[in-house]
Amino acid sequence: MDVPIILIVALVAGILSITMALYFRYLVLKEDPGNERMQEVAGYIEEGAKTYLKIQYKFLGIFVAVLAVAMLFLPSSLDDSDTYTRLFSDALNWEQMLAYIIGAVGSMFAGWLGMYVSVKANTRAAQGCTVSTKKGFDIAFFGGSVMGLTVVGIALIGLSTLYWIVPDPMIVLGFSFGASSVALFMKCGGGIYTKTADIGADLVGKAEYDLPEDDPRNPATIADNVGDNVGDIAGMGSDLFDSYVASIIAAMMLAATLPVFVDLALDLDANARFVYTIFPIVLCGVGLLASLLGIWYIKWKGSNEPGKALNTGTYVSTILFTGLAALLTLIMVIGLTQAEAIMLWRLFGCAVIGLLAGITLGLTSDYYTRADKKPTRKIAEAAQEGHAVVVLSGISYGLLSVAPPTIGIVVAMVFAYLLGGVFGIAIAAVGMLAIVGTIVSNDAYGPIVDNARAIAEQGDLGDDIIRIADKLDSAGNTAKAITKGFAIGAANLTVFALLFSFATEAQIKAIDLLTLNVLIGAFIGVVIPAIFSALLILAVQRNAAKMVDEIRRQFESNPKILSGEEAADFSKTIDIATKGSLRELIIPTIMSVIIPIVVGVLFGVAALGAFLIGAILSGFVFAIFMANSGGSFDNAKKWIEDGNLGGKGTETHKASITGDMVGDPFKDTAGPSIDTLLVVMSLTATIFLGFLMLFGGGAGLFIF
Amino acid sequence: MDVPIILIVALVAGILSITMALYFRYLVLKEDPGNERMQEVAGYIEEGAKTYLKIQYKFLGIFVAVLAVAMLFLPSSLDDSDTYTRLFSDALNWEQMLAYIIGAVGSMFAGWLGMYVSVKANTRAAQGCTVSTKKGFDIAFFGGSVMGLTVVGIALIGLSTLYWIVPDPMIVLGFSFGASSVALFMKCGGGIYTKTADIGADLVGKAEYDLPEDDPRNPATIADNVGDNVGDIAGMGSDLFDSYVASIIAAMMLAATLPVFVDLALDLDANARFVYTIFPIVLCGVGLLASLLGIWYIKWKGSNEPGKALNTGTYVSTILFTGLAALLTLIMVIGLTQAEAIMLWRLFGCAVIGLLAGITLGLTSDYYTRADKKPTRKIAEAAQEGHAVVVLSGISYGLLSVAPPTIGIVVAMVFAYLLGGVFGIAIAAVGMLAIVGTIVSNDAYGPIVDNARAIAEQGDLGDDIIRIADKLDSAGNTAKAITKGFAIGAANLTVFALLFSFATEAQIKAIDLLTLNVLIGAFIGVVIPAIFSALLILAVQRNAAKMVDEIRRQFESNPKILSGEEAADFSKTIDIATKGSLRELIIPTIMSVIIPIVVGVLFGVAALGAFLIGAILSGFVFAIFMANSGGSFDNAKKWIEDGNLGGKGTETHKASITGDMVGDPFKDTAGPSIDTLLVVMSLTATIFLGFLMLFGGGAGLFIF
Repeated sequence: MDVPIILIVALVAGILSITMALYFRYLVLKEDPGNERMQEVAGYIEEGAKTYLKIQYKFLGIFVAVLAVAMLFLPSSLDDSDTYTRLFSDALNWEQMLAYIIGAVGSMFAGWLGMYVSVKANTRAAQGCTVSTKKGFDIAFFGGSVMGLTVVGIALIGLSTLYWIVPDPMIVLGFSFGASSVALFMKCGGGIYTKTADIGADLVGKAEYDLPEDDPRNPATIADNVGDNVGDIAGMGSDLFDSYVASIIAAMMLAATLPVFVDLALDLDANARFVYTIFPIVLCGVGLLASLLGIWYIKWKGSNEPGKALNTGTYVSTILFTGLAALLTLIMVIGLTQAEAIMLWRLFGCAVIGLLAGITLGLTSDYYTRADKKPTRKIAEAAQEGHAVVVLSGISYGLLSVAPPTIGIVVAMVFAYLLGGVFGIAIAAVGMLAIVGTIVSNDAYGPIVDNARAIAEQGDLGDDIIRIADKLDSAGNTAKAITKGFAIGAANLTVFALLFSFATEAQIKAIDLLTLNVLIGAFIGVVIPAIFSALLILAVQRNAAKMVDEIRRQFESNPKILSGEEAADFSKTIDIATKGSLRELIIPTIMSVIIPIVVGVLFGVAALGAFLIGAILSGFVFAIFMANSGGSFDNAKKWIEDGNLGGKGTETHKASITGDMVGDPFKDTAGPSIDTLLVVMSLTATIFLGFLMLFGGGAGLFIF
Repeated sequence: MDVPIILIVALVAGILSITMALYFRYLVLKEDPGNERMQEVAGYIEEGAKTYLKIQYKFLGIFVAVLAVAMLFLPSSLDDSDTYTRLFSDALNWEQMLAYIIGAVGSMFAGWLGMYVSVKANTRAAQGCTVSTKKGFDIAFFGGSVMGLTVVGIALIGLSTLYWIVPDPMIVLGFSFGASSVALFMKCGGGIYTKTADIGADLVGKAEYDLPEDDPRNPATIADNVGDNVGDIAGMGSDLFDSYVASIIAAMMLAATLPVFVDLALDLDANARFVYTIFPIVLCGVGLLASLLGIWYIKWKGSNEPGKALNTGTYVSTILFTGLAALLTLIMVIGLTQAEAIMLWRLFGCAVIGLLAGITLGLTSDYYTRADKKPTRKIAEAAQEGHAVVVLSGISYGLLSVAPPTIGIVVAMVFAYLLGGVFGIAIAAVGMLAIVGTIVSNDAYGPIVDNARAIAEQGDLGDDIIRIADKLDSAGNTAKAITKGFAIGAANLTVFALLFSFATEAQIKAIDLLTLNVLIGAFIGVVIPAIFSALLILAVQRNAAKMVDEIRRQFESNPKILSGEEAADFSKTIDIATKGSLRELIIPTIMSVIIPIVVGVLFGVAALGAFLIGAILSGFVFAIFMANSGGSFDNAKKWIEDGNLGGKGTETHKASITGDMVGDPFKDTAGPSIDTLLVVMSLTATIFLGFLMLFGGGAGLFIF
C-alpha cells in the first residue's frame, strides 16, 4: 500500500523526541553530582534500582518468551479464511509474535533509559538546590523528561515503522501486547517494591523510633528511594506507554471496519480508509510536538513556581495540541470527499473532547486529594478521633470521588459517540493520551525530587537546602494527582475502544446480559479487580511485615546504627523488597492472562466481552477509589505535619500516618496496576481470539 | 380463579408461626427480669429503642405516603392495553398502592414486635444465666425466635391472602415494595445508629480511658445496647423479610410468563400455570414448617453447646425442608401431565440447589471470619505490625473472600438454569430463603445475648455469670457470620430473579452491552454501591465524631462519672445516635428510588436493566467484602483479647481495636444495607415501568 508522507509526521516526531531525550540526558549528566556522601547514597540507589530491574527483566524474559511461543502456534484471528484453524498448522504467526517481542523490548528499553537517567538526576538535582531553586528544578525536570520523551518516542517510532512495513493493525496489536506485558510486571512489581520499603521504613523508623523521613540511620531508607524509582518512574512510564500504544492501535483496528460504527453514510475508498486508519497515530505525532513545546514552556517558567509551572505546562500542551491537530486535520482532509472531510473534523472534535475529559478527571483527582480542599481537610480532622476514624473517612471520600469522573467519562463517551460513533470513542482515548509526553515528564519529575530531598538529607546539605528540595517535592505531588486521573481515564477509554475492536474482530453481534453465559462473564469480570487489588495489597502487607522485622532486628542487634556511629545494612532491606515483589507479582500477572482465556473457553467470546466490560467498570471504581483515597490520606498527613491540628508528634499526627500507610498500597500499588490489568486482559482476549474460536465456534464449552 | 387447597399450606404455616411467636413471647415475659439495676438498664435500652423506632416510623410514614401517592397516579405496567397511558387518567392504581401500604405496615409490625420482645428478653436472659447456661440460652433463643417467626409469618400470611384476593403477581409486587421501603430505612438507619454508638463508646471509653466493654460509666453504653437492637434485630429482620418476600414474588411473576424462560416444550394450561405460580409460596410454607422444627431442635440441643446447636439447627432445617418439599412436590404433581410433573421436580431440584448454595456461602463467610482459620489469624498477626498493617490485611482478606461465594453463586445459577431456566434461578432464590425462619431466629439471638452480657456487667452479677453470658455471646457471633452469607447470597439471587421479571415485564428482548446507552447504564450501576457505601460509612464516621465529643465532654465536665459516683447522661448519647442516623439516611434512601428512575428516563429500560445488573454485581462484591472483612476484624480482636499475641492492653491489641472499628460500619452498616438497596432499586424499576414507558416508549430521552 502506498504510504502517504503524512505518516512521517509521527516518525519524525518520535525521532525528534528520542533526540531531545538524549540531549536532556547529556544536560543532566554534565551537572555536579554533589559531595562524596551524596554520591555514595545515589550510588546505592542506582545499584538497588539496577539490580531490581535486572532480575525483573530476567523474569520478564521468561514470561515474554513463553507467551511468544504460545502466540506462534496459536491460530491467529488474522486468518482470512475465517475458520481459525491455524493451530499446529504450518503457517506460524511469526509477524504478530515479532511485533510482540519488539513491543516488549521497546517498553523495557524505555523503562531502562528513563530510570538510568533518573537515578543520576536525583543527586544532581539535590546539588543543584545548593545553587538555586531554578537549577534544582531544571535538573529534576530534565531528568523526568527523559522518561517522558523516551516512552512516547519509542512508541511512535515502533508503531509507525511496524505499520509502514506491515500495514495491518492486527499485526501491530502484537506490539501493544508486548508493551502491556512489560507494563504489568513493572507496575505490579514496582508498586509492591516501593510500598514494601515505604511502609516498612515508616512503621519502625517513624512510628517506633521517631526518626524523621529519609533519616540515614533507617535501614530501609535506601530501599524506599529505590522504590520511588522502580515504582513511580519505571512503573508509571511503562503504564502510560502501554495505554498510549493500546489506544492508538485500538483506534486503528476500528478504522479497518469503518463505516460500520460511524453514524454517517460513508462509502470509503481505500485512500479514505487509510487516512482514518493513520489518523490516530499522526494525531499522537502532533501531540508529541505539543508536548515538546510544553516541556520547553515548563523549563522556561519553572524557576519561580514549580508546582504551577507543571500544571500550566499541561494546559499549554493542550492548547498547542488543539491548534496543531486542527492544522493536521486541515491538511489530511485534502483529497477526501466532503462527507469524509466532515467526518475527519468530527473525529478531531472527539480528540479534543477526550483531552478535555482527561484534564477534567485530573482536576477532580486534584480536588479530592489537595490539602486545601474539603475532602482532605475532613480526613485530617477525622484523624483527631483516632486511627480508625481517619481510615474510615479516607475510604469514604475515596469511594465518593468515583462519582465525578464517572460523569466525566460518560459525558465524554456520549459526545464522542454522537460525533464519531464507537470510532469516536477510540479517538477520544487517543486525544486524551496525545500529550502523554508532558504527563509522564511531570510525573517522573516527582520521584526524582523526592530522591533529591532524601539525598540532601543524607548528604548533610543543611536545612535551607532541604527546604528548597521540599518545595520542589510538593510541586511534584500536585502534578502526580493530575497524572493519575489522566492515566485512569485514558486507560478506561482505551479499554472501551479495545473492547469494541475485540467485539468487531470476534464478529459478536450483541453482548446480551439476559443470556446466562454473558451474565456470568460480567459477574466474574466485576469480581476480578477486587481480587487483583487484594492480592497486591496483601503482597505489600506481607513484605512490609518482613521489612519491619528486619529493621527491628538491625536496630536491636546493633545499637550503633541508631546512634549513627555505624551504617545500617541497606542490602538486606533492598533484598527483601526485591525478592518479595518479584515473588508476589507472579500470581496476579499470570491471572491476567489466564482468566480471560478460561472465561472465553468456558462461556464463549460474548461472555468474554461481558467479562471485559465488567472488569473495566469495576476496575474503574477501584482504581479511582484507591488512587484518590491514597492521595488524600497522604496530603492530610502532610497538612498535619505542616503544623496544623497540633502538628508532628501528636496523636492526631500518628493517626494520620496510619491513614497514609493504608493509602500507600492503594495509590501506588493496587490502584495504578488495575489500569494495566485491564489493558492486558483486553489485549489477551483479542490476541487469543483465534484460539477461543476453536471452542464451540466461539460459543464456549458451556452453551445455554 | 379457583384456588386449590394447597395454597392453604402457606397460610396455615404463617398463622402457626405467629401463634408460636406469641407463645414464645409469653415464655420470655414470664421469666424473672433480674435485680433492680438490671431492670433499670433494660428499661433504658427499651426506652431508647422505642424512641428511635417511633421517630423512624414517623419518617417512614411520610416516605411511604409520598411513594403511595406517586404509585396511585403513575401508569401501571399492569395496563392490559400495553399503552401505559394511565398517567393522570381516571383509573388509579389502587390495588398495587394498597398492597404497598400493607407490605410496609406488615414489615413495621414485624420489626416492632421482634424488638419489643428482644428488649424484654435481654435482662431475663442475663438473669437466666444465674440459674444455668441452659436457662439463659433458652430465654435468649426464644426471644430471637419471636423475631424470626413473626417476620416469616407476616410475610406468608400477607402474600397468600393478597394473592388469594387478587391473583395477580404485579399487584402483590406492591406488597414487596412496601416491605423493601421499610427495610431500607431500618437497615440504613439502624446500621448507622448501632455503629455510631459502638465506635463512639470504643474510641473514648476503651482507647482513651481503658474502660472495659459495656462499662456502666461509659455514657455511650446504653446507646450501644440500643444500637444492637435497632440495627441487628429490627434491621436484619426487615432485611430478610424484604428478600424473602421479593424472592417469592419474583418467582411468581416469572411463572406468569412460563414457558418462555423454561427450556422445555411445555404447553401449560391455566391449572398447570397456577401450580407453578403458587409453587414458590407453598415452598416457603413448608420451609417455615421446617424452620419451626429446626427451632425446636435447637431448643432441645442448645443447652450444651450453644454455638454448635445454632448451626446444627440450620442443617436440621435444611434436611427437613428437603424432605417436606419433596413431599409437597409429590402432592402438587397430581393432575399435571408427565412433562409438567417432571418440570416441577426439576424446580424442586432448583430449590434444593439454592438452599445448598446458601449454606455454602454461609460456610465461606464462617471460614473467612473465624478466629481459628487462616484469614482471621493472619489479620490478628498483622496487628503486631501496627494499625495500618492490620487494616490493610483485613481489607485484603475481605476482598479475597469475594471469590468463593462468586463461584458458589455462579455454579448455583448454572445448575438452576439447566434445570429450570430463568424460573429455576428464581426458585433457587426461594429455596435459599425457605428456612429464613431459622436464620433470623439465630441471628436475633445474637444481639439479645450481647445485651444480656452488658446487663449482667452493669447489674453486677459477677464474673462467673458474665463468663456464661460471654459463652452465649460468642455462639451468637458464629451464627451471625452464616446468616450474613445467607442474606447476601439470597439477596443476590433474588435481585437476579427480579431483574428477569423486570425484563419480561418491560418486554426487553436484549440488554446489549455493545449499545452505548446500555453500557452507560451498566457503568452507573457499578458505581452506585460504592457511593452508597461511602455515604453510609461517612454518616457513621461523622456521627461517631459527635459521639466522641459528647463522651469526652461528659468525662471532663464531671469527674464523678469516671469514678462511678454519678451516672453518666445516657439520654444525650442516645439522642445523638437517634437524630444523626435519621438525618443521614435520607440521602441514601432517596437515592435508591430516584436514580433508577432517572437512568430509565434518560437512557431507557434496557439501560435500566443493565444498571440493575451492574449494581447487583458490584453490590455483591462490596457486600461480601465488607461483611467478611468486618467480621474477621472483629474476631481477630476477640482472639487477641482471649490472651493471644500478648492479649489485652498491648499495642497489638490496640491495633486490632482499630481494625475492629474500621470493620464495624463495613459489616453492620454499609455491607448489609447494600442488599436492601439492590432489592429496592429492582422493585422501583418494575413498579415505575409504566412511567418509564412514557419516555420514548421505554427507549429513554437519549437515543443513540
